[in-house]
Amino acid sequence: MLTIDCTNCYTDAIGDPGLDRETLANSSDSGRLASDLTAELDSVRTTGWTRWRGLPFDPMKSDHLGAINPLVSKLQGRFDNMIVLGIGGSALGNTALQSALNPPTWNLLPNEQRKGPRLFVLDNVDPTAVAHTLRFIEQSGGLERTLINVVSKSGETAETAAQFMCCRDMLINALGKENYARNIVAITDPEKGTMRTICDNEGYETLPVPDGVGGRFSVLSPVGLFSASMCGIDIAALLDGAAAMDERCSASALNDNPAAMLATLFVRLGLENGKTNHVMMPYANSLYLMADWFRQIWAESLGKQYNTNREEVFTGFTPIKALGATDQHSQIQLYREGPNDKVIALLAVESFDEDVPIPSGLGVDSLAYLEGSSLGQLLDAERRATTYALTHSQRPNLTISFPKIDAHHIGEFIQLWQMATAYAGLMLGIDAYDQPAVELGKQATFGLMGRAGYEEWAAKVASF
Amino acid sequence: MLTIDCTNCYTDAIGDPGLDRETLANSSDSGRLASDLTAELDSVRTTGWTRWRGLPFDPMKSDHLGAINPLVSKLQGRFDNMIVLGIGGSALGNTALQSALNPPTWNLLPNEQRKGPRLFVLDNVDPTAVAHTLRFIEQSGGLERTLINVVSKSGETAETAAQFMCCRDMLINALGKENYARNIVAITDPEKGTMRTICDNEGYETLPVPDGVGGRFSVLSPVGLFSASMCGIDIAALLDGAAAMDERCSASALNDNPAAMLATLFVRLGLENGKTNHVMMPYANSLYLMADWFRQIWAESLGKQYNTNREEVFTGFTPIKALGATDQHSQIQLYREGPNDKVIALLAVESFDEDVPIPSGLGVDSLAYLEGSSLGQLLDAERRATTYALTHSQRPNLTISFPKIDAHHIGEFIQLWQMATAYAGLMLGIDAYDQPAVELGKQATFGLMGRAGYEEWAAKVASF
Repeated sequence: MLTIDCTNCYTDAIGDPGLDRETLANSSDSGRLASDLTAELDSVRTTGWTRWRGLPFDPMKSDHLGAINPLVSKLQGRFDNMIVLGIGGSALGNTALQSALNPPTWNLLPNEQRKGPRLFVLDNVDPTAVAHTLRFIEQSGGLERTLINVVSKSGETAETAAQFMCCRDMLINALGKENYARNIVAITDPEKGTMRTICDNEGYETLPVPDGVGGRFSVLSPVGLFSASMCGIDIAALLDGAAAMDERCSASALNDNPAAMLATLFVRLGLENGKTNHVMMPYANSLYLMADWFRQIWAESLGKQYNTNREEVFTGFTPIKALGATDQHSQIQLYREGPNDKVIALLAVESFDEDVPIPSGLGVDSLAYLEGSSLGQLLDAERRATTYALTHSQRPNLTISFPKIDAHHIGEFIQLWQMATAYAGLMLGIDAYDQPAVELGKQATFGLMGRAGYEEWAAKVASF
Repeated sequence: MLTIDCTNCYTDAIGDPGLDRETLANSSDSGRLASDLTAELDSVRTTGWTRWRGLPFDPMKSDHLGAINPLVSKLQGRFDNMIVLGIGGSALGNTALQSALNPPTWNLLPNEQRKGPRLFVLDNVDPTAVAHTLRFIEQSGGLERTLINVVSKSGETAETAAQFMCCRDMLINALGKENYARNIVAITDPEKGTMRTICDNEGYETLPVPDGVGGRFSVLSPVGLFSASMCGIDIAALLDGAAAMDERCSASALNDNPAAMLATLFVRLGLENGKTNHVMMPYANSLYLMADWFRQIWAESLGKQYNTNREEVFTGFTPIKALGATDQHSQIQLYREGPNDKVIALLAVESFDEDVPIPSGLGVDSLAYLEGSSLGQLLDAERRATTYALTHSQRPNLTISFPKIDAHHIGEFIQLWQMATAYAGLMLGIDAYDQPAVELGKQATFGLMGRAGYEEWAAKVASF
């Protein structure tokens, strides 16, 4: 299972910038004990906006696997390409799972070497990126062998709707109005909304966005699981890992509860010690996009103007992603010598699926120390050296260790941060599940795009 | 040419969090006028560590194009794959140029549709990423048709050396000791160092890392230009764009000098108004990795413990990358409602190379407003809406506009930020060209890897 080493967040390792280890368990910024928060989270478990907590457990687990598995069996082998249409919470998790659990060369490999279709996640409306991607797909396998997976609870998110309108039209032109629906799977509200209506009218296969599961907490629902399963990822193992972590995060003692511990450290270092920038720095390329998923859940859940008492707080932390060892040559100079305003969470991998030996034979004295070692050993030495250097500069840092990168441990990691976000929300006294500040931009966009009823917004935004 | 709109950094747009427009030209944090700084930069132009400023001009321009162009002509057509071995400043620029100026599907395209080899930049020593990449290359085109481009001034950077030892051995095994050198181009010190010795002994083609050009200021030298040119990018246009921007950034009046203006805004908003997090948010997928290049130059140049008077300052700013419109659904909630600690630089594109029309025919009232528009129009509306929403929340923001994304404008952009970094370094009173904090981690890594002479470090770091 994942382990966490917080040693270098404490005063005995880094002096004044750290937290006092002895008082940690007895206080939190909100004045409530971690055990109280655990009880509070337990009391609302799988109700309201915390229904995401039920995703790794029955009945939701069986419901979703029971819907996804037969659909994947039916579709497997029919498609060379799969395009996920979504944005934000409907895309970041899909990208992160694929990057973590399949090879970086996945899309480059010939069909027989892949356990599923090439995967393209169109998480933006950049016209040249979309045009190049669609053009490539038309040339390789063609649209007949391309699955469009649109993910939108309401169907009204402008970016996803626009992506969908382009891809639907392309499919109709290639396959005919009577056939094209067989190449679409929609993940949407099971009962209501614009996309639901479209699905019912056009006859698409659908999977549910479960009620009460917000976008950024949806990766372990069909939103994230379907594309993962299509690409050969063991989604039952993902859920099992998440369930195991959920159990650990239900412990009432702070030292036994990794999510409560992470939340306590990040929130207290943030609010009390001014460490408001929270860096996630995996020492593994495959976990780099998992840091993007973290960026969303941490930023959008905790960045709030008002607390639940409607007092103005302008709270939250800035999540930042970095990649080890690469960013040692880009960011570490700042992290060690710049303002001491960060907590750095390094991600370590104890055993890589394969390692690359560093061969001998170059015959250069100053590089002889590398011969007979391996890239994995070098990467791990770099990580340990960075931990040492950060600690030497009194910069709070912690390490989350993966025994290996597989579906079970990725499931643990996802639930760990979902739970840590829930704890941090309670500690900050804010609603971790809304995103009121996103609305203004949506309305302004509607105005600029000429949507009926939003005319006043067009005028307001005209000069921007 | 690039244009910059700073309106929303001023008090008349965003109130107290902004800067006073009238006093801006008359002060800077260091108490020196922008015109003085311009004169100071001019007085050291192309000497010491500012020799990067000469890269777009003769004699350096002619020297480098004169070396690169014939080599590219000689090698073009011989290779299906090109692997750049480097890290930090020897990789970020290469990746950024390729991403900005070639299609995102480049490596997926068949040989006849590419203007050069597939490009892989191995900017890490992640063993599974390297193993998968090398395995793919052995299968596609094979090593005979693979060019290894190692970039290292000294040859002693551990990550690059390890990558090189692996790739060299692989080439020797496939092509034989007598032939393999034809598949290697090294970019290194023209006169001294470990890599120079290797090149001379083994007979590789080489291009120079020019003396006095640091890694993070080297993208317009052969370090960045060679792989770009191999991939069909117009490197003369890149340099011409940089030269044109350099001229604009030599103006002594603040309002005529975009680099001095950017530096003044970012430094003053940072030091005086507490906006120490500097976000670059392109509204174009192809510019997203250019933000990684920016992250290095801004973090590593300005993040310093001591100023040039050896006073402890712990200064610098945290560069952050975000992608529009994608990160509106991930980060904007925080940027609008969280702590007001950021300056956000949006990058706009006035005209994309191609646009994707949003077709009609869906027949859904609530989405009808999208029909007849295009993805490019939607993306631009999202950007304007975000600018409006950020300004409404009193968050300082500015927009840098590209008339289009091409080599000339990318050259402008690179020189703009190199110059802005030089100005910001003078304003902060620090040495923008060193990176003392990177050394400790290197020594600790040497210790852990058992390099002779670093035994004491192994003991110090043992517990980390």
